[in-house]
Amino acid sequence: MRSISSIEFPTTRYQSVRDQSLAICAPLAVEDLMVQPMTDASPPKWHLAHVTWFFETFILRRYAGDYQPFNPAFESLFNSYYNGIGEQFPRPRRGTLSRPTIDEIYAYRAYVDEAIARLLRQGCDDELGFLIALGLNHEQQHQELMFTDLKYTLGTNPLEPIYEYRDPGDPITAMPMGFDEHSAGIYPIGVTENRSGSGSFAFDNESPRHEVLLRAYALGNRLVTNGEFLAFIRDGGYERPDLWLSDGWTAMNSGGWKHPLYWRGADDNYFEYSLTGLHQLDLAAPVCHVSGYEAFAFARWFGGRLPTEAEWEVAAAAHKPEGNFVETRQLHPRPATDRQYFGDTWEWTQSSYGPYPGFSEFSGDIGEYNGKFMANQLVLRGGSCVTAQSHIRATYRNFFYPADRWQFSGIRLAKDL
Amino acid sequence: MRSISSIEFPTTRYQSVRDQSLAICAPLAVEDLMVQPMTDASPPKWHLAHVTWFFETFILRRYAGDYQPFNPAFESLFNSYYNGIGEQFPRPRRGTLSRPTIDEIYAYRAYVDEAIARLLRQGCDDELGFLIALGLNHEQQHQELMFTDLKYTLGTNPLEPIYEYRDPGDPITAMPMGFDEHSAGIYPIGVTENRSGSGSFAFDNESPRHEVLLRAYALGNRLVTNGEFLAFIRDGGYERPDLWLSDGWTAMNSGGWKHPLYWRGADDNYFEYSLTGLHQLDLAAPVCHVSGYEAFAFARWFGGRLPTEAEWEVAAAAHKPEGNFVETRQLHPRPATDRQYFGDTWEWTQSSYGPYPGFSEFSGDIGEYNGKFMANQLVLRGGSCVTAQSHIRATYRNFFYPADRWQFSGIRLAKDL
Amino acid sequence: MRSISSIEFPTTRYQSVRDQSLAICAPLAVEDLMVQPMTDASPPKWHLAHVTWFFETFILRRYAGDYQPFNPAFESLFNSYYNGIGEQFPRPRRGTLSRPTIDEIYAYRAYVDEAIARLLRQGCDDELGFLIALGLNHEQQHQELMFTDLKYTLGTNPLEPIYEYRDPGDPITAMPMGFDEHSAGIYPIGVTENRSGSGSFAFDNESPRHEVLLRAYALGNRLVTNGEFLAFIRDGGYERPDLWLSDGWTAMNSGGWKHPLYWRGADDNYFEYSLTGLHQLDLAAPVCHVSGYEAFAFARWFGGRLPTEAEWEVAAAAHKPEGNFVETRQLHPRPATDRQYFGDTWEWTQSSYGPYPGFSEFSGDIGEYNGKFMANQLVLRGGSCVTAQSHIRATYRNFFYPADRWQFSGIRLAKDL
Amino acid sequence: MRSISSIEFPTTRYQSVRDQSLAICAPLAVEDLMVQPMTDASPPKWHLAHVTWFFETFILRRYAGDYQPFNPAFESLFNSYYNGIGEQFPRPRRGTLSRPTIDEIYAYRAYVDEAIARLLRQGCDDELGFLIALGLNHEQQHQELMFTDLKYTLGTNPLEPIYEYRDPGDPITAMPMGFDEHSAGIYPIGVTENRSGSGSFAFDNESPRHEVLLRAYALGNRLVTNGEFLAFIRDGGYERPDLWLSDGWTAMNSGGWKHPLYWRGADDNYFEYSLTGLHQLDLAAPVCHVSGYEAFAFARWFGGRLPTEAEWEVAAAAHKPEGNFVETRQLHPRPATDRQYFGDTWEWTQSSYGPYPGFSEFSGDIGEYNGKFMANQLVLRGGSCVTAQSHIRATYRNFFYPADRWQFSGIRLAKDL
Repeated sequence: MRSISSIEFPTTRYQSVRDQSLAICAPLAVEDLMVQPMTDASPPKWHLAHVTWFFETFILRRYAGDYQPFNPAFESLFNSYYNGIGEQFPRPRRGTLSRPTIDEIYAYRAYVDEAIARLLRQGCDDELGFLIALGLNHEQQHQELMFTDLKYTLGTNPLEPIYEYRDPGDPITAMPMGFDEHSAGIYPIGVTENRSGSGSFAFDNESPRHEVLLRAYALGNRLVTNGEFLAFIRDGGYERPDLWLSDGWTAMNSGGWKHPLYWRGADDNYFEYSLTGLHQLDLAAPVCHVSGYEAFAFARWFGGRLPTEAEWEVAAAAHKPEGNFVETRQLHPRPATDRQYFGDTWEWTQSSYGPYPGFSEFSGDIGEYNGKFMANQLVLRGGSCVTAQSHIRATYRNFFYPADRWQFSGIRLAKDL
Repeated sequence: MRSISSIEFPTTRYQSVRDQSLAICAPLAVEDLMVQPMTDASPPKWHLAHVTWFFETFILRRYAGDYQPFNPAFESLFNSYYNGIGEQFPRPRRGTLSRPTIDEIYAYRAYVDEAIARLLRQGCDDELGFLIALGLNHEQQHQELMFTDLKYTLGTNPLEPIYEYRDPGDPITAMPMGFDEHSAGIYPIGVTENRSGSGSFAFDNESPRHEVLLRAYALGNRLVTNGEFLAFIRDGGYERPDLWLSDGWTAMNSGGWKHPLYWRGADDNYFEYSLTGLHQLDLAAPVCHVSGYEAFAFARWFGGRLPTEAEWEVAAAAHKPEGNFVETRQLHPRPATDRQYFGDTWEWTQSSYGPYPGFSEFSGDIGEYNGKFMANQLVLRGGSCVTAQSHIRATYRNFFYPADRWQFSGIRLAKDL
Repeated sequence: MRSISSIEFPTTRYQSVRDQSLAICAPLAVEDLMVQPMTDASPPKWHLAHVTWFFETFILRRYAGDYQPFNPAFESLFNSYYNGIGEQFPRPRRGTLSRPTIDEIYAYRAYVDEAIARLLRQGCDDELGFLIALGLNHEQQHQELMFTDLKYTLGTNPLEPIYEYRDPGDPITAMPMGFDEHSAGIYPIGVTENRSGSGSFAFDNESPRHEVLLRAYALGNRLVTNGEFLAFIRDGGYERPDLWLSDGWTAMNSGGWKHPLYWRGADDNYFEYSLTGLHQLDLAAPVCHVSGYEAFAFARWFGGRLPTEAEWEVAAAAHKPEGNFVETRQLHPRPATDRQYFGDTWEWTQSSYGPYPGFSEFSGDIGEYNGKFMANQLVLRGGSCVTAQSHIRATYRNFFYPADRWQFSGIRLAKDL
Repeated sequence: MRSISSIEFPTTRYQSVRDQSLAICAPLAVEDLMVQPMTDASPPKWHLAHVTWFFETFILRRYAGDYQPFNPAFESLFNSYYNGIGEQFPRPRRGTLSRPTIDEIYAYRAYVDEAIARLLRQGCDDELGFLIALGLNHEQQHQELMFTDLKYTLGTNPLEPIYEYRDPGDPITAMPMGFDEHSAGIYPIGVTENRSGSGSFAFDNESPRHEVLLRAYALGNRLVTNGEFLAFIRDGGYERPDLWLSDGWTAMNSGGWKHPLYWRGADDNYFEYSLTGLHQLDLAAPVCHVSGYEAFAFARWFGGRLPTEAEWEVAAAAHKPEGNFVETRQLHPRPATDRQYFGDTWEWTQSSYGPYPGFSEFSGDIGEYNGKFMANQLVLRGGSCVTAQSHIRATYRNFFYPADRWQFSGIRLAKDL
């Protein structure tokens, strides 16, 4: 028997996370579940199947001795990028897979859930417990992607369909922009590696915990607002090459960017598309859906810079991971009433996504999860209004290409002291 | 009052053609209706809406004085390529339109059908009768495209879903290949222009009827079979540049073509995917889903050539337009028991699609229907197993780019005498 | 001995044509000989070597028993598109071949010329005589391309270098536009095949001579002028989709075309770049460097159409092949004082480039010369101001893609009667 | 008068660096000076003009009151990427500029050199001294690029022309691979900003000098050899996705990489193209012309990793900047007889190119020199066999995209302790 130490796995957590994926789809039409509006954004249907494939591939095929795969063709069909597992159906064509239908995928989910439940009834050890925790964190990541990808689908449809209507309500005033100072010093960041099913979960890329040397710095006490970003636009922000990184200037021009992704209109009359409707642009709310290049240009225009991920983590570690997460069901960032380190929008840092000193990947095929992406991407921190609160922590490292705009990504400023 | 001569429009024909579009979708899942597997192939849902838009735009908005559009946004959303009408939603993104949902599109269809019925109850003149006939012929073209586009969707899905299963049945022997000789002379082709609602319908590109001068020639007495095409492959057909047009050689290499589009396997063990299942390749059946370039290379390898469209029409005019059309519900070409001028597969000709001498387009915005495509395409003749029989005639000119393979396109040989 | 009938080959013609290639380069810098300004336009240096390779490959390697190739690597380096001969150095990279240097290429030319002279001293039969005639006509084609490609190189250089300065001189008035009528009938076009070294030379694509059936038509009595084309522009010609072929509208938009290729400026102040300098646009001179799509759109705007190649040939056959050819050293089209069937600009026809009935290619590897390009291109007729007069005739068929603009291509109008 | 403190500028250094650019071109044909073999690699002619433009634009136009530009059109023609100066001639078309000719560019150089000499005779202050030093360091960078770009031109020409022949000589044995250990600690890296003409020159991106916190590590005591890289290949290095970064796997497959850029042959019979000829692969020499992705994959295969730039600098700072630089005229890396921190090949680090804490760019338009490239690139250290020795130092930061292979880039291994 594999199990050295036996642990008790919270099966209610398993089902609760799994159910959340279905809940996200509840307001949607079958048609919405099919759309891949660009290569990076997958259909909700594909997400539903892929996260299930993850449990099947990394747990059931390995730990449940008598497990019969639901459909052998799914092995490549719903493999995202695990070369160690085998070939993958081409990513740009995910939106062409009308079959399996959504009903078949729901059946696939139920089949796998039942097999997992059966497996867990036989007991759970550290290794299995860890893999299930990983599978659930993985599913939470895809739940967030379901929102971001879906927003792109609906938000680029000329009918501008609404996911769940919200009245914008009375305007809120954001707290004034200020800077919190942090003294120079040696600080620890990251987490100590724990690849067991007990204790708190973290991804391999957050380890090891290690010391960093920081110079004195200050961080903006809240996210940059739409109003502040509008001032940048009005000052010619998108027309001044001196503000931009060279690759950013190219991306901006070839993309025809004139404002953040979901803004509509121009000049004095901007609207913003959100999952809850097309509303007048809220100047007090955090700017959202900007690329890392726009964040960089804004910071330079402002006379500041983007924080490093270490600066961010040291500051955020002093705060509870609370805020405007998916649980608030706002599905949109809110004007600041506090420091907003968590929730609202992911925050671009200037740090390239790379290995921490002494980093080692998850072992085995699952090692492809994070490590192989450590090139050409930037770290983002803090979670957003479509992140699950239970998924986030101060050490959490998200990463996207600096040209990406479809995530709920915003800006926190930093300054040298 | 517009109407000079009043005609009686067969409203049962209207509803019967319209219903056929729904019947095609009956065996499909909602998911299948969403897929645009490549830019050229539109989702069934889009076809259903676009053909309805055609009636709304060219008839209801112009003839039904009090007509209120179902949804003003549909004007651009379902405009295919009519610049005279206005902007068009970008073609490559048709598969991203989850909204309107299929139910909304069904409602759109019913709304328009009712308005057409109301209009026709007020009487019908030549002009209106012609436009309705045009709208129905237009819808029949899209019904055929629904099959070809859908075949591409299902046939490129690794699960290879079946539209409607058919047992391949006992093998049939094709009649032996021979050549029918035609003497030199001056022959009439095309139809006399008739843009009225009475009389038989034809497209503008089939007019005017005019004389052509032909040298003595012979045409193959049936379509080229899979077995004959296999001999071409085995003789290195896809590896011998001397057989290919220069642009064809480039297209073949960049597309990685090794055999017709829906063949699977290699060497002595080929299967063919069809709407009725994946079956062992039937060597007696006509080869299908070859590009014009492959047709050219095969003909050259054989020692013949492709017919001109005039040669084809002169020969076909002597035959009744009967054959394996969509009404046989075979959805796949059958081995020849007769000359196969009509049905089974469209037949590539060597003729570029251009205007007949004295050609004039339909007047008004509808003039964009055919005329503006008279560049870079080849004429195909005869209809296929997914064409409606009532839609075809000897003078009918279809046209596709020589690299296109997703239509039911096959090969008839010609020779000089 | 190969020779059945011995013929006398005019060796002075050989050297005179060959020398012409060098004369074209005389006013150029070594640097100019290197440039490939786009994939379609080759460096002069490459042209000089390729035409020499043609004599080496198709004549010396086959007829001169003891011939030692100048450099074996040239076999693929200067092979343009003859798959029967072997691999080709990639066309888009011709401008990267700094070696062989121009001096080595001059040495290559001298080496081959000497070997040809040696060979001819041994006698000449029909076959050899034909191949040498072919090689010289081939070289004349490349001499024309040297001018067109070079014009693109110099004309897209911001310094706008001049090949050979000409003062524009006093304005000339073009003869008034009129239409010459031609009656319906059966007419012969093309030439009787003659693949011997004696008699007049023609390409395979001009054969066989055959009859065509024409309806009554009229042709413009001169080429369309810049002034007439300017009226088209001012009437929104480049902004009205109803005037354009669909593929043309796409090409025009993606190319950003606003006027013919070498026009500069806008509105009331146009200049035209030519090999002889940048001069004020001459409204009386023929419009030049328009694509087939622009020619089509202009003709449609005018209320006419482009001629078919048969209509053109029947009309042109009544005229001597005289006009503004390269021998006038104008290097630019001139206002019409006569019918301009020959010289000034190539004339777009509406005819797709295809095989004449009964066409057969040159035999052997040289069969790739013309036949394999019979797809997607249009026929142009008449030669231009950079064509050698001895190279042209009424039956001559040139061909380019309808989007091509860098040739000296203009417009003659046609009308139905 | 601008000058606060007057300094003495070594005009002999100015002319000596400038002359070096001409010396590089001495063995070349005019044709070689024209070639742009890919977008990233500019023609030598362009380099010669651009470095001259740099002096004209940033010094003469600003400091020499009466200066008349040599040719106003050069302002945009030879502007590389300075948006603050104005528009730039499109980079991919640099190889199409046959004019100005090389003789005109030599005249341009002489004209500017004379104006600089005249200016310096009037005295030199800190600001001017700094700009001239910058201009000379800039020219040294382009001298290196002339070699790397030229190698790509000659090395992709099937004739494989040699820049300067060298007999490979007797084989040398490289010193055995070992690892030098470095203890954990806080170390200073970078240079204190000095933007004056006196003192030693450094680029803005090397400042400010600051402390870094390092864990204990070890660095390979020499560069990775061809023999070691061959073992990686033989072990399936290019076929094992587990060794590669995800973006690297994509780049490798789309580029068809099977070995370093200039290797020829396969299996047991590799040759390497170099500026000094095509020689049998020297297994003892450092591997060269690998991308950052290949360096990463090799290090992972070996069981090590790439160094960070800080680790490298701390180690290298203990060594004199001596080695196989361009002055040895080897133009190719040599087997190690010492630690090779300097010269032979640039060394890929795992560090993204970004700003040091407290970084500020050069002021004014020249601020675009380095700062705007701080995205998506990796830092390389140490210089190569085509770098000028006087140009390099331990703090020097070079940067290229991880997919770039045409630089003299190699691999040093690192390990955690």
